[in-house]
Amino acid sequence: MIGKLVKDRVLSGKQAINELYNTGYYGRPKGDTLELTLVEAAYLLYKKKLDIELQGRALEFKEFFTEASKMQQYFELKYIVYKDLRERGFYVQPSVTDFRVYPRGGHPGKTPAKSFVYVRSERIPMQLPDLLTSLNAADNVHKQMVLAIVDEESDLTYYEVKKVKVKGEMPAISSPEALIRTTLLEDRAIVWDAASSQHLHQDGFYGKPLDDERLQLSLVESAYLMERNFISIESSETGDLLDFDAFSVVASSIEPDFLRKYRAYADLRDSGLVPKTGFKFGTHFRVYTQVSLTGKMPHSEYLVHAIPWDHVFILPVMSRAVRLANSVRKRMLYAVEDRAAVAYVDIGRIKM
Amino acid sequence: MIGKLVKDRVLSGKQAINELYNTGYYGRPKGDTLELTLVEAAYLLYKKKLDIELQGRALEFKEFFTEASKMQQYFELKYIVYKDLRERGFYVQPSVTDFRVYPRGGHPGKTPAKSFVYVRSERIPMQLPDLLTSLNAADNVHKQMVLAIVDEESDLTYYEVKKVKVKGEMPAISSPEALIRTTLLEDRAIVWDAASSQHLHQDGFYGKPLDDERLQLSLVESAYLMERNFISIESSETGDLLDFDAFSVVASSIEPDFLRKYRAYADLRDSGLVPKTGFKFGTHFRVYTQVSLTGKMPHSEYLVHAIPWDHVFILPVMSRAVRLANSVRKRMLYAVEDRAAVAYVDIGRIKM
Repeated sequence: MIGKLVKDRVLSGKQAINELYNTGYYGRPKGDTLELTLVEAAYLLYKKKLDIELQGRALEFKEFFTEASKMQQYFELKYIVYKDLRERGFYVQPSVTDFRVYPRGGHPGKTPAKSFVYVRSERIPMQLPDLLTSLNAADNVHKQMVLAIVDEESDLTYYEVKKVKVKGEMPAISSPEALIRTTLLEDRAIVWDAASSQHLHQDGFYGKPLDDERLQLSLVESAYLMERNFISIESSETGDLLDFDAFSVVASSIEPDFLRKYRAYADLRDSGLVPKTGFKFGTHFRVYTQVSLTGKMPHSEYLVHAIPWDHVFILPVMSRAVRLANSVRKRMLYAVEDRAAVAYVDIGRIKM
Repeated sequence: MIGKLVKDRVLSGKQAINELYNTGYYGRPKGDTLELTLVEAAYLLYKKKLDIELQGRALEFKEFFTEASKMQQYFELKYIVYKDLRERGFYVQPSVTDFRVYPRGGHPGKTPAKSFVYVRSERIPMQLPDLLTSLNAADNVHKQMVLAIVDEESDLTYYEVKKVKVKGEMPAISSPEALIRTTLLEDRAIVWDAASSQHLHQDGFYGKPLDDERLQLSLVESAYLMERNFISIESSETGDLLDFDAFSVVASSIEPDFLRKYRAYADLRDSGLVPKTGFKFGTHFRVYTQVSLTGKMPHSEYLVHAIPWDHVFILPVMSRAVRLANSVRKRMLYAVEDRAAVAYVDIGRIKM
C-alpha cells in the first residue's frame, strides 16, 4: 500500500481505509482518503504495512523518520509512546492532547476513548497551571488523564493525574480549660506542663516529647493550636505573648513557605487527618487517617507537598517523589492553594 | 550537687568529678573543677543529677533551657542529639565538631572516640565545600563522620558520610572496524544499522532499542562512544558530522549540566561500571556493576548524582534521595568533580 507525504500528513486511498482503518483503526477516513499523522505513518512504515512516497520516490525508514523529526517537535517522543501503546494492544487516535486511547475491547466508532495521554520529555519542566487546565478538560469529558514521560534513554513511565478529596477519622481533642502556655525557642515551641503535654500528644498526636514531661511543637502545629485557642505562645526573646500575625512573621522568617504549608496543614487537620513532618521523605507532610497512641502506630496513607498555584514541576524531581511514595505504599498528593480552599492533586505511576 | 552558671559553662566542684565524670564521663575535669557545657548541664538537670544556680538562686528547667537557648545557637537541636546519644548508651564529649562519640564499651581516657557527629537542622542548607572539609578532617584522624539531622518535629536521622572508590566488572566491548554512523535527532542519536545496534546494546548495554533494528543512544552515551571512536554522529539539521566540541555545544543547550554529567558517566564507564539513566529515581544514573543481556537483568548497586564542587545540599532533598536509594537497596553516591578526577561521596542512613 502506498501513502503520499503531503506537508505533515500522509494520505492514502480507499484500500487503506479497508486494510488499515477498518481492521486496525489507523488514521481517519476523509471521504475516499485515509489521513495519517506522521507518527501513525512511521509506525506503519516500520511494520511494513505502508510505503511512503515523496514526489514519486519511496522513502526509507531513516529518511522518513529524520524528516518527520524535523517537521514535528518531539516527534521521536510521540513515536515512542504511540508505538508502546499500540504494542500493548490499545487503539490510539490523535487528539487535542497528544493521544486519545481507547479502553481494552473498545475502538473508535464503538466506544468513547478512556484516556487523554500527554507526552512529555523528562527534560521539559511542567507548569502547574497547564497541568490543571488539562486535568479540568479531561475531567469535564470524563476522561482519565495520563502523562507519558519519556526519559533520556527513551524509557517510558505513565502517570495518572487526578483530583482527590481527603478525609480522615481522627476525633477532635477536647479544649483545655485555660490556654496552655508554651514558649517559642528558635524554631519550635515547648509545652512545659506535663499534663498538657500528655493531652496534646496522646489524644491529638501533636508534637514530639522532649522528655517525659515536656512537648515540642513544630511551627505549623503551634500555629494551628494557637488559632484554635488551645495554646498561647510566649516569645523567649521578649517574654511577650505572640498573636497569630506576630507568630506568622517569625515563622515565615524561619521557613519562607510557612503560610502555604500552614494552610495545607490546617486543611488536613480540619479534614480529620493527622499530618506529621514528611522530612524523611523529602515532602512537607506524611499523613495518617487516624492515630491512636494506645494501639500500634498505623501506616501513613499519603505524602503531601504544598505547592503554589504557579508551581513548576521539574519532572525528575516529581518522578522521585512519586517513586518514593509508591515504594513505601503511600499516595503522593500535591496540595494546591485554590482561592480560599486547598485542592489535592494525586499523581501516581500506572501500568497501561 | 550544685553547678554554677558562669557565662556559657556550668562549673561544679570535686564531688562532681567523682560522681559525674568518673562514673558517667560528663564534663571535663579542670583541676578541682568540673566544667560542663550548657547541653551537658541541661541533661543533668533533667536527670535530676545536678542543680544549677545563677547568683545564688536555683534555676528551674524551663528557665535554664530558655536561657541556654538564647546563649547558644541551635541549643535545642544539640540538646536533642546529645540526649538521644546518651540514652542509647554512648559516652559523648564536645569537640571542634559538635560531638565526639565513643564506641560501645569505650570511654574517654580508655579509647579514642569513634565518630565525629555534626548536628544540623533540616532547614539549614549544607555547603558541599564545608562537608568535604569536615570529611577530610575526620578521615585524617580516622574518625567516622556522622550527620545528625533534626527535623522540624525534632525527629532525628543519622547519616554516615564517606568517600568511596567504585569499580565494576563490565568488560570493554570490541571496537568496530569502521565508525558506526548515527544521526542526532533532537535529544538522542539513532543507530540505524541492525548489526551495530545489536553489538552496542547486547555487548555493552548501550542505548535502548527503538525497534528490532535500530538503537537510541542518550546524549552521554553518544558522547562517550564518539570520544572512544566507536561512532560518528551526523546532525539531522545540516547533515554534517559533529566533532566532540560541536556535539557538546548542542548537548549542553539541551541539558545545561551535560558536561558534568558526562564526566561522571565517563568515569563510571572507565571504571568498568554500567551507568544508565536514574530518571525514575530522580538522579542522574543508576549504576550496575555488570550487565549480561543473556542472563537475568541484575540489580543496580548505586544511584549516582553528579554535583558541582560548590553544590549546596537542601537537606530534605538529600534525605529523600538517600531514603529512596535505601528503600530500593541501593547506595546513594554523589559524584563530585575534584580537579581532573571524580570523587564519590556516599551518604547513607545509619542506626546509632
